[in-house]
Amino acid sequence: LRTAATLDSPLAARSAPLLQRVDRSMSSVTIPPPACMLRPLEVPLRYLFGPGPSNVPPRILAAASRPIIGHMHPEMYEIMNDIKRGIQYAFQTENNMTIAMSGSGHAAMECAVFNTVEPGESVLISINGIWGERVAEIAERMGANVHRLVKTPGGYFTNKEIEQAIEKHKPVLFFLAHGESSAGLCHPVDGIGDICRKHNCLFLVDTVASLGAAPIFMDKQNIDILYTGSQKALNAPPGTAPISFNERACRKMFNRKTKPLSYLFDMTHLSNYWGCDGKPAREYHHTGPVSGFFSLRESLAILAEKGLEESWKKHTEVVAYLYKGLEDLGLKLFIDLRLPSVTTITVPDGYNWRELLAYIMKHHQIEMTGGLGPSIGMVMRIGLMGYNCEKTNADKALNALADALKNCKKSKS
Amino acid sequence: LRTAATLDSPLAARSAPLLQRVDRSMSSVTIPPPACMLRPLEVPLRYLFGPGPSNVPPRILAAASRPIIGHMHPEMYEIMNDIKRGIQYAFQTENNMTIAMSGSGHAAMECAVFNTVEPGESVLISINGIWGERVAEIAERMGANVHRLVKTPGGYFTNKEIEQAIEKHKPVLFFLAHGESSAGLCHPVDGIGDICRKHNCLFLVDTVASLGAAPIFMDKQNIDILYTGSQKALNAPPGTAPISFNERACRKMFNRKTKPLSYLFDMTHLSNYWGCDGKPAREYHHTGPVSGFFSLRESLAILAEKGLEESWKKHTEVVAYLYKGLEDLGLKLFIDLRLPSVTTITVPDGYNWRELLAYIMKHHQIEMTGGLGPSIGMVMRIGLMGYNCEKTNADKALNALADALKNCKKSKS
Repeated sequence: LRTAATLDSPLAARSAPLLQRVDRSMSSVTIPPPACMLRPLEVPLRYLFGPGPSNVPPRILAAASRPIIGHMHPEMYEIMNDIKRGIQYAFQTENNMTIAMSGSGHAAMECAVFNTVEPGESVLISINGIWGERVAEIAERMGANVHRLVKTPGGYFTNKEIEQAIEKHKPVLFFLAHGESSAGLCHPVDGIGDICRKHNCLFLVDTVASLGAAPIFMDKQNIDILYTGSQKALNAPPGTAPISFNERACRKMFNRKTKPLSYLFDMTHLSNYWGCDGKPAREYHHTGPVSGFFSLRESLAILAEKGLEESWKKHTEVVAYLYKGLEDLGLKLFIDLRLPSVTTITVPDGYNWRELLAYIMKHHQIEMTGGLGPSIGMVMRIGLMGYNCEKTNADKALNALADALKNCKKSKS
Repeated sequence: LRTAATLDSPLAARSAPLLQRVDRSMSSVTIPPPACMLRPLEVPLRYLFGPGPSNVPPRILAAASRPIIGHMHPEMYEIMNDIKRGIQYAFQTENNMTIAMSGSGHAAMECAVFNTVEPGESVLISINGIWGERVAEIAERMGANVHRLVKTPGGYFTNKEIEQAIEKHKPVLFFLAHGESSAGLCHPVDGIGDICRKHNCLFLVDTVASLGAAPIFMDKQNIDILYTGSQKALNAPPGTAPISFNERACRKMFNRKTKPLSYLFDMTHLSNYWGCDGKPAREYHHTGPVSGFFSLRESLAILAEKGLEESWKKHTEVVAYLYKGLEDLGLKLFIDLRLPSVTTITVPDGYNWRELLAYIMKHHQIEMTGGLGPSIGMVMRIGLMGYNCEKTNADKALNALADALKNCKKSKS
C-alpha cells in the first residue's frame, strides 16, 4: 500500500486503489472556508490597566516575533537556562529546581499541587479572595483532604491563626497568595515559612500578581514552592509561568508512592526537560511554547537590567501617586495592606461599576476591571505593572475615572 | 496598616512600621542579576525540517508580535470565535464544542481523556509509535482501566482487529493516531468511527502531525473527539492545540458522576471560556495565551484562504518529489502508509544516524531528527509542512542528506 503522496512519482501506478480513495476525499470537503477567516486579523489598541495581562513593551513583542528554533535545540536549552537564572533572581532563590511552565498561572498551580500532594493527604488553603478558592478546588479534584482557612476578600491571616490551623489539620502543604489580586491584598509572608518548617508542612506561595512589584525572598522567607505568571509585572504575553521548588519540596515530590495524576505536569519529566535533574540527556516530553519562552526571557532580562529594588521602588512610588489621585477624586481604597501592582477601589456609592468600566473602555480605550470571584461587585481594580508603571499612566487612569464619575448616572439610592 | 506603597503620599507617616520592614527588604537582595541575562537574546536561523515545530511564516510571526489585548475583551472573543470557525473548517466538522487549548498537543490529549473517561472505566489505546504510549500513560494516571492494542512502530490496525478488541474490552474510548509521526504512518480512519458507534465507544483521533497535510473529515468519518497542534502544518508557534468534541462526546463528558481531575482542562469551564455552552456570560477561568491565539488565528486564516484541498495536494506533490529524491540517494523509506507531512527513512546501513543529523545541522542549519520513543534508532525523519512544503526545500533537504552520506564515515560493520 502507498498513499496518494506518490502521485507524481514513478511508483504511482502501484498505488492506484489508495489514490482513488484520497482523490475522492479531496473533492469531498463539505464545510467551506468560513468567511470570517478571510477578513484580516483586527486588534484594537487598548491600555491594559487591569489586573493583567499588562501591555507588552515593544522589546518583548520583538522577541516574540523572532523566527523560532526547535524546542530541543541546544540554543533553545541555552535560552531556557537563561530563563532559569532569571527566575532565580526574580524569586531570590538558589533553587536548582526552577523552571517555567508551558501554560498560565493555573498550570503552575496545578503543577505545584499535583506534584507535592498525594491523594488522601491533608492540605490547608488560606482563602481571602479567588486564588485560594482555585487551589482548594484543584486539591479537592486530585483527591486531597482539603481544609480551608477563610476570610472575607482582602482579609489577612495572622501567623498565630496560621499556626493554630496547621497544628489542627497537620497538612502536608499550606497555600497562601502573596498577591491576592482579586482583593488587592499584599499578604505578609515573614515567619510563615518557619512555622511550616516546624510542623513539617510545605509552604506554597502564589506571586502571580505581586512578583516584580512587591518584595519577595523565596530562600530567606523559607518558601518551599513559589510560582508566578508571565503577564503581570513581567509584561510578557500570557502563556508561561515560572515556578521553583526547594530541596524540601523536591524531597517530598520525588519520593511519592503514586505518580502525579497529570503526565504533562509531572515534575519528573519537566525537571528533565529543563535540565534540572542532572541527567546528561533531555528526553522529549512535550513541545514547549518556543516564542513564549523568547518573550519570557526578554521580560526577565529587562527585570535583571533594571534591578529588583528599582522595580519595587518604582511600583511603590507610582502607586502612592495613584492613591493620592484616587483620594482626591473622593474614591475609597478597599483595603490597607495593598498590592503595589493592583489597586482595589471600593465601588463608589450610587454608581453601577459595570457602567463606569464600560464608559472608561469606550471613551478612553482603558481596561480597568471589576472584582473577581468573591470580590465581584465590591471593587474596581486598577493595575499599573512593570512597563505600565508610570505616573503618566496613573494620570491617564485618573483622568478616565474622573470623566466616568462625571458622566455616568448615579442611581437614586 | 499600610504598605510602603504610600511612601510619597501624605499618609506615609501612618505606616511607619511597615515601611521600615519593606525598606529593609529592599536592601536585602542577595541573589544578584545573572550575567547571562545581560546578554541579548540570540536566536540562530534554522530550517525546521523535522517533525515540528515547523518554520513560522512572516505573516504569522507578525500576528504574534501585535500589541495584545485582554483575554476577556469582546474583540478577543471575536478572535476566538474566528479560531473556532477556522478549526471547524480544518477538521471538517460542524461541532459547536470546538476550541483551542491553551497548551501543547499534550494538553489536548489530557483534556480529551480527562473529560470523557471516569476512573475505573475501560479504554482501548492503539499503540504503534509514541503517541499511543502517551495516551495510555495519561489514561492510566487518571485511573482508567487501560487496554493496549500494540504493533511495532509504523504497523497499522485493520478494522477487524480494532472491532475484535473493542468487543473484548468494551471500552468507553478508543484512541488512534491518524498521524503517527514517530513512525511516519498515516493511519486509515474510514469505518472505525462506525465500529465505535456500534459498540457505544467514543473514537478519539490524534491529528497533531497530519492536519492540513492529509485529508481528515471529522463529521463524515464519525470521529467523536479530534485534536491537533499549532506547530505542524499550521505553522504557528507551539503553544495552542485545537480540539473538537461532537454531541456523543459531549453527552458522555457532561453527564459524569465525578469532576475531571484537572480544573484547568475541565471542559465545563473551557466551553464557557470559548462561548460554546450557550450561557450569556463568559466567566474568568484562566488567562489564555493572547499572542498564541493571534498566531493560531492567522495560521487558520492562511489555511482557509489556500483551501484544504490545495494544502493536501501540495503536500502530496512535494512529498512525492522528496520520495523520488530519497530513492535516488539509495535511501529506503521506512513504511508504506506514509504521512505526507513527516517522512521516515530507514537509517542507512553502516551509518550512525546521530552523526548524520549533527552533520546536517552543523553544515546546513537544517533540523532533521531521529526517531521518537519506540522508533529511536530505526529512522531519520524529514518534515516539510505547510509553509515549508516546497520542492525547493525538498531539494535543500536532499542536498544536505547527500552531503552527509558522502562526508560521514561508515562504520566497519
